[in-house]
Amino acid sequence: MSTARPSNRTPDQLRAVTLETGVNRYAEGSCLVSFGHTKVLVTASVEENVPGWMRGKGQGWVTAEYGMLPRATHTRGRREAAAGKQTGRTQEIQRLIGRSLRAVVDLKALGERQVVLDCDVVQADGGTRTAAITGAWVAMASAFDYLRAEGVLKADPILDQVAAVSCGVCSDQPVLDLDYEEDSSAEADSNFVLTGSGTIVEIQATGEKRGFTRTEFDRLFQLADGGCAELFAMQRAALGR
Amino acid sequence: MSTARPSNRTPDQLRAVTLETGVNRYAEGSCLVSFGHTKVLVTASVEENVPGWMRGKGQGWVTAEYGMLPRATHTRGRREAAAGKQTGRTQEIQRLIGRSLRAVVDLKALGERQVVLDCDVVQADGGTRTAAITGAWVAMASAFDYLRAEGVLKADPILDQVAAVSCGVCSDQPVLDLDYEEDSSAEADSNFVLTGSGTIVEIQATGEKRGFTRTEFDRLFQLADGGCAELFAMQRAALGR
Amino acid sequence: MSTARPSNRTPDQLRAVTLETGVNRYAEGSCLVSFGHTKVLVTASVEENVPGWMRGKGQGWVTAEYGMLPRATHTRGRREAAAGKQTGRTQEIQRLIGRSLRAVVDLKALGERQVVLDCDVVQADGGTRTAAITGAWVAMASAFDYLRAEGVLKADPILDQVAAVSCGVCSDQPVLDLDYEEDSSAEADSNFVLTGSGTIVEIQATGEKRGFTRTEFDRLFQLADGGCAELFAMQRAALGR
Amino acid sequence: MSTARPSNRTPDQLRAVTLETGVNRYAEGSCLVSFGHTKVLVTASVEENVPGWMRGKGQGWVTAEYGMLPRATHTRGRREAAAGKQTGRTQEIQRLIGRSLRAVVDLKALGERQVVLDCDVVQADGGTRTAAITGAWVAMASAFDYLRAEGVLKADPILDQVAAVSCGVCSDQPVLDLDYEEDSSAEADSNFVLTGSGTIVEIQATGEKRGFTRTEFDRLFQLADGGCAELFAMQRAALGR
Amino acid sequence: MSTARPSNRTPDQLRAVTLETGVNRYAEGSCLVSFGHTKVLVTASVEENVPGWMRGKGQGWVTAEYGMLPRATHTRGRREAAAGKQTGRTQEIQRLIGRSLRAVVDLKALGERQVVLDCDVVQADGGTRTAAITGAWVAMASAFDYLRAEGVLKADPILDQVAAVSCGVCSDQPVLDLDYEEDSSAEADSNFVLTGSGTIVEIQATGEKRGFTRTEFDRLFQLADGGCAELFAMQRAALGR
Amino acid sequence: MSTARPSNRTPDQLRAVTLETGVNRYAEGSCLVSFGHTKVLVTASVEENVPGWMRGKGQGWVTAEYGMLPRATHTRGRREAAAGKQTGRTQEIQRLIGRSLRAVVDLKALGERQVVLDCDVVQADGGTRTAAITGAWVAMASAFDYLRAEGVLKADPILDQVAAVSCGVCSDQPVLDLDYEEDSSAEADSNFVLTGSGTIVEIQATGEKRGFTRTEFDRLFQLADGGCAELFAMQRAALGR
Repeated sequence: MSTARPSNRTPDQLRAVTLETGVNRYAEGSCLVSFGHTKVLVTASVEENVPGWMRGKGQGWVTAEYGMLPRATHTRGRREAAAGKQTGRTQEIQRLIGRSLRAVVDLKALGERQVVLDCDVVQADGGTRTAAITGAWVAMASAFDYLRAEGVLKADPILDQVAAVSCGVCSDQPVLDLDYEEDSSAEADSNFVLTGSGTIVEIQATGEKRGFTRTEFDRLFQLADGGCAELFAMQRAALGR
Repeated sequence: MSTARPSNRTPDQLRAVTLETGVNRYAEGSCLVSFGHTKVLVTASVEENVPGWMRGKGQGWVTAEYGMLPRATHTRGRREAAAGKQTGRTQEIQRLIGRSLRAVVDLKALGERQVVLDCDVVQADGGTRTAAITGAWVAMASAFDYLRAEGVLKADPILDQVAAVSCGVCSDQPVLDLDYEEDSSAEADSNFVLTGSGTIVEIQATGEKRGFTRTEFDRLFQLADGGCAELFAMQRAALGR
Repeated sequence: MSTARPSNRTPDQLRAVTLETGVNRYAEGSCLVSFGHTKVLVTASVEENVPGWMRGKGQGWVTAEYGMLPRATHTRGRREAAAGKQTGRTQEIQRLIGRSLRAVVDLKALGERQVVLDCDVVQADGGTRTAAITGAWVAMASAFDYLRAEGVLKADPILDQVAAVSCGVCSDQPVLDLDYEEDSSAEADSNFVLTGSGTIVEIQATGEKRGFTRTEFDRLFQLADGGCAELFAMQRAALGR
Repeated sequence: MSTARPSNRTPDQLRAVTLETGVNRYAEGSCLVSFGHTKVLVTASVEENVPGWMRGKGQGWVTAEYGMLPRATHTRGRREAAAGKQTGRTQEIQRLIGRSLRAVVDLKALGERQVVLDCDVVQADGGTRTAAITGAWVAMASAFDYLRAEGVLKADPILDQVAAVSCGVCSDQPVLDLDYEEDSSAEADSNFVLTGSGTIVEIQATGEKRGFTRTEFDRLFQLADGGCAELFAMQRAALGR
Repeated sequence: MSTARPSNRTPDQLRAVTLETGVNRYAEGSCLVSFGHTKVLVTASVEENVPGWMRGKGQGWVTAEYGMLPRATHTRGRREAAAGKQTGRTQEIQRLIGRSLRAVVDLKALGERQVVLDCDVVQADGGTRTAAITGAWVAMASAFDYLRAEGVLKADPILDQVAAVSCGVCSDQPVLDLDYEEDSSAEADSNFVLTGSGTIVEIQATGEKRGFTRTEFDRLFQLADGGCAELFAMQRAALGR
Repeated sequence: MSTARPSNRTPDQLRAVTLETGVNRYAEGSCLVSFGHTKVLVTASVEENVPGWMRGKGQGWVTAEYGMLPRATHTRGRREAAAGKQTGRTQEIQRLIGRSLRAVVDLKALGERQVVLDCDVVQADGGTRTAAITGAWVAMASAFDYLRAEGVLKADPILDQVAAVSCGVCSDQPVLDLDYEEDSSAEADSNFVLTGSGTIVEIQATGEKRGFTRTEFDRLFQLADGGCAELFAMQRAALGR
């Protein structure tokens, strides 16, 4: 017997997810992704150069930056640009997004160019990093579609889909896609980044309030597998594939 | 005889302006303002305290912060949080927005609380600071409506409307509400911040390419007067007044 | 009938202004400018290179930096170098000074070299930015005289004179050249940057305590016109022209 | 059939691990931990106060800072204090260490005091963060032993042991406790933080070169379980328990 | 037989030294000190509070800040406020000035107030730190005269005079009071801070190009003794004592 | 008749000094130096390039960085990397170490390469800068031995030995090699950096509590001479010379 979730979702139910492309008229690719009340605006900017340490290697680079608008949350947070530095949390998240996207791109096929994925959280209700990864894949794929249509790229550098979702143990029950209310009281919290072909790109699992068991972990993994399968279908639909 | 504008607008014609309220579920007030392709998301956050130097004076404070998403523009700009500081331009703009809004608020009626207006440019096609001021008034007024409905405020601290618009001399012709294409080639550029009752809050006029004449300046002023009159009507409509 | 000014000046009267050249033995040009008790030391440094983004364009650049000694004011202010950053006010002022001087220089005639105008406020009694602009023109012109004497420059890159003065509405009376006492209580405050040939380089007008009227603005403009005419004559005298 | 490891260890073999206590005469607890050539000096400093946001809650706090001496590695890295900021990697690691240690401490039993675990890497040959966690537990436990001997603490606030180890897939073979040579060429890399009672505190697993499979992940987990069992025994021995 | 100095001074001859008081109308004390072409503007600001770590001890504090205007030198240097930090050299110098002045002040007699000595180098031709110390004593003594005249202080907190001078070995010859030309080619460089009663406050001696001998050092000391005796007389004269 | 020292040493007695080489497996040279409880880990890193401003001069450079682990002292100090900047004290010390070592190196014989001496204080009980200099010479000499063995250097660029020791006036008695307890209560404090051939590289002497006399200074110098003679012998022994 399971406890009711605050949102009345079943344990394995995602929030309403939307992936809207073409939301920025200048960026090569863009996507406004929503997981319930969480909204992240992602732009994919393609630059015809790579960072200094990569030059001359005949391959490209994919990186990400992450930010949160000050009033994305219940109470206003400090603007990082005003504070003069990005928090450890911000840096940790943007490193994760970059790694996750690079895992599904053929950097040689990309050529000596860089894709910067700017993920700006417009409204935050839990799961911003996993929403960002899921939307960033759509924004990046849109950008590659555009570059191929323009004749800049001959082949699609994308090797696979990648999506991400959070799961956690709340009131001793493993559940999928935590909103803020669940996230802030969860015993354990995890993020899974998986590929369309079923491999693991990243797992981050933390016992926030207590250590968790192997059985709980296996159930979280199973929930994430199911959630990502749904997200992969929505990503393809958003791109009209 | 006048030169055609890139947008085919008449010299005294504003771009399509929209003011959408209630775009953030957490902020006390919010407004997504568009002047053509320029889009600024404004949230008004009300905090139950004032900056240290104002405490105990029995009055409130209104301040603003301004930011631009990295890909708001044609080519991606550096994220200020990553650069570790706000540029001089950013600071200049947020100081202007703050002064403009304070000019129409009765700080004593506000009580010892602070309104922070976060103006984040989602897409930039010229005139972001004037759009921000125009939208910030709507977001702030919405927040005060909310606070009065909640019984937190007895009276509306707003004394007057405030709106802003840019004008400039392009190809020797004074025109209203410059887009990026006009702005980047203008001989002179100006921003007018005016009140509903017809007084001046701020004038900033700069000869970018050449000094400009008193006659040109007077025409810019006249254009701004007409533009702001339209904006005041739209602000009232957005609030259902 | 007008109110007496704290300094007993008439509404259209400048403070005692002095412009002393040759005050630094290393700089290509220099000027110690005083407007009453306000004293700004300006050096013009000519460097045989331009900023990276300007290289190879066959033209020069003019820029300014502004600073205030900690005890330039009644109470000691924090040293910006110790604080680790320049305030928004400082950046706003140095951007204004740079724009104002560039407006009267033929950057092509300057060649690929940069003029840096360092404006350091030794004593501050209101109007430091307008004094800085007025003195910077003298320092810059001195530097160009020196470079022509040395044979580095063939022609004078200066196209026109530029000077600046503040005006404001104090006790409902428009007055010229505010000192600190007037400045801190003014209803409206403005800075006019004008050229010797009568065009406008920059106008900044702000209602500090209340919006101001078109009539008041026109009177401020008239006062500035008269004040700058006097300043132009003093600039020429300082250079022995 | 397995590939030989560069160190000739078997896939499930730890490097030589040592945990030396009492290495700093001032700190309440300290431990010099070695995993092969990786050496981390950990000090546990007990401060009789907590961070501002925790005051008055009747409980303590455990936090960590991490640093690497510039020449801990093959080629000298930049000193973070000279660079003026900690990298994202450093912040990510110190957040992980802090979370891991807090998971096994009864913060109420600690009282309103803070334990700061400084983990400074003297020599780095892979696995510095897991060595730091393993050694930090010993340093912290030593500090609590000292505080109990001094009568400052009545009961031991430690609820459980915590240790950590890295595992990865190298040349398609899952192996335990990667050294730098393996780490830099691994297809997948993971860190497991486990408790003495068998629960999971943190799992971080990343496909560096390719996504990895569920079967590979399960084997990594099994290796970590075995490795941590050995580490728990060594921790107890180091404390003479 | 001695080599001629670039300035034709004898080995034991100071440059022309002037100490002008009352050069800032706001500061409690001020002094413009010149050693030849080296000019330092010193203001002494008295604040009615002490740094946090000194509060409640019933005594005062004396501290110094040092800066150099960008064009104080032959070629323009970077403005520290723009660079965002003070160099190591700046910090070293301001710590020296603070220590030197505190050595001759009875901090208890000063009461819980702080004297900040701002030493800004307007023109630099070697020996700025020693000029700053010599002038700072005059500025500070003027401030104490003012405070006694105002009745704020009952007794003079000054215990002794302090002055400083540089000496060095140039072309194997020990000389007093190096200018920039000598300073940049000296084999050894030293700064002596001495009191009116003949004790040593600080000695800093460095072999810049080679180690120097005990005999050379003793001669430098003798030169400094003679130079400071002259400076003490000038300090008293500047204050009309 | 002399007062007993807290450590019961005679006035001219050094603490137990050890110099252990080969303590870091990656650095070209290294030395763990102890002066009693003061322990400094020094690594000498040789880089095949020089700072930008030295390129193309056909000579090398020697520089130093200094840091203190947070819990090197009785109470934990703030980590400089977390604070975001090095203190003035740190910069002053690392400049001193660099100057001292450069004084005994033939930079031309070194060729266009840089030696970076990282001096990290593991435990601090007074005299960390003098211990660092003494140990840095050993680390650097070891690195040069290694480079000659590898055939990178033909001749030893070392011209002389350099060592350093502190002396001070404690309870009116001049003593050698102060520990923290003496250092914090000394009337005067000094550091002497001397060469094996008997010349002076650097003298820093400060009256902390009172000015000190010429007689006291001469005795401090004599103590330092004797102390350094012992240190030179230990340096040679550590290198097996």
